[in-house]
Amino acid sequence: MTYAVGLLLNEGMVLLSDTRTNAGIDHISSYRKMFRFEVPDERVIVILTAGSLSVTQATIARLQEAIEDPEATADTSILLAPSLLKVAEMIGATLWSVREAMDRRLHTNGSFGQASMIVAGQRRGGVMRMFLIYPEGNFIEATEDTPFLQIGEHKYGKPILDRIVRPETSLADGQKAVLLSMDSTLRSNLSVGMPLDLAIIERDACRVSHVRRIEAGDDDFRAMSEAWSAALREGFTKIVLLP
Amino acid sequence: MTYAVGLLLNEGMVLLSDTRTNAGIDHISSYRKMFRFEVPDERVIVILTAGSLSVTQATIARLQEAIEDPEATADTSILLAPSLLKVAEMIGATLWSVREAMDRRLHTNGSFGQASMIVAGQRRGGVMRMFLIYPEGNFIEATEDTPFLQIGEHKYGKPILDRIVRPETSLADGQKAVLLSMDSTLRSNLSVGMPLDLAIIERDACRVSHVRRIEAGDDDFRAMSEAWSAALREGFTKIVLLP
Repeated sequence: MTYAVGLLLNEGMVLLSDTRTNAGIDHISSYRKMFRFEVPDERVIVILTAGSLSVTQATIARLQEAIEDPEATADTSILLAPSLLKVAEMIGATLWSVREAMDRRLHTNGSFGQASMIVAGQRRGGVMRMFLIYPEGNFIEATEDTPFLQIGEHKYGKPILDRIVRPETSLADGQKAVLLSMDSTLRSNLSVGMPLDLAIIERDACRVSHVRRIEAGDDDFRAMSEAWSAALREGFTKIVLLP
Repeated sequence: MTYAVGLLLNEGMVLLSDTRTNAGIDHISSYRKMFRFEVPDERVIVILTAGSLSVTQATIARLQEAIEDPEATADTSILLAPSLLKVAEMIGATLWSVREAMDRRLHTNGSFGQASMIVAGQRRGGVMRMFLIYPEGNFIEATEDTPFLQIGEHKYGKPILDRIVRPETSLADGQKAVLLSMDSTLRSNLSVGMPLDLAIIERDACRVSHVRRIEAGDDDFRAMSEAWSAALREGFTKIVLLP
């Protein structure tokens, strides 16, 4: 499994994904699930992926190929598309066409290779936008009412986001929130695993402002995780049980 | 949906379930999902249910009918069965036979009416035991390593249990933990809803020691929920973001 989350905040966007992939419990590996596409200062697009690795890798490869094609146009390359909405449409269509080709071969009627993606980006002159692409290629968008999107094993880490994340949350608090959300998920589900990829896109920067890989055994992450456990236990002891 | 949870602690067992049931979003009702069977001081059995209401109601009705049958034996009545293990087997077999009858009628091959149950109990002279009965009628048991069992919409409320619940946790802390676990679930999933049913079975009491229904708008529960939110936010502000 995977857990990946994106926050759309007033100050910018915060993105975090794990790297564990498994095809059966004896075939567990690490794969990057965060992909950056940039024309610095003009546009930035970050894609997080969850689900069938063969589908997500093929989708990313096709998007990359289309970008590198010398005859790339606004209809084929996500770095030339006229809007982020169009980018989301192109990614959704690519994802679906990859799955459809396998489905035809396997006669699996749409059930092959479930995969979903979070697409976050901004182009110069536009606003920041973040989309969740469903396995069928359709998508929804993060809004002020729903300033975060999650894919993969998302339930364990949702309560803390529900309580903390608002559009006015700072980028620093946003990073803390996604890391603690991931921490809860790592504790509750073995199939989500380190290392983690964290990226920040500041508003109007039109580039990835900050990126960090957090390795297994990272001292800072462990300290944060332990501090959060201690804070939860301390908070818990202060709660008065209903009479 | 449903969320129900049971803790098997050294001091006793703590059980909590919600009451919301839906058959389509315009047909939402409250149904009790906690059922008590007692021969006070001799044996106590509490069953929590999740899943298809027609299946769980029919299963409970059959168990009740078998208890009331004047010719009830140790093989038919869960109040006469020689062990809690046997009780779990009888409940699992009843659940499966209810589903199987509907499956035959509908030709649905085992997919009709998914339902699961938590069975907690003790009989005089035996130890406390707690089982999770799967839709197929097989089951697992809570142990020292895994002192809690959950059914239904269980993921949102798992992180706090993972962090807090140990066999040596007190009954008071156990109650706080399940109520806060339920609170996280209520906030994240609309299909789980108040009122709640809480029951405590103290060790060796062989009866339900304490039972409480927590209605929507219960002031004590709301105060507890708000105190927990405040504690989480306060704890969150103290966490130092990794550099």
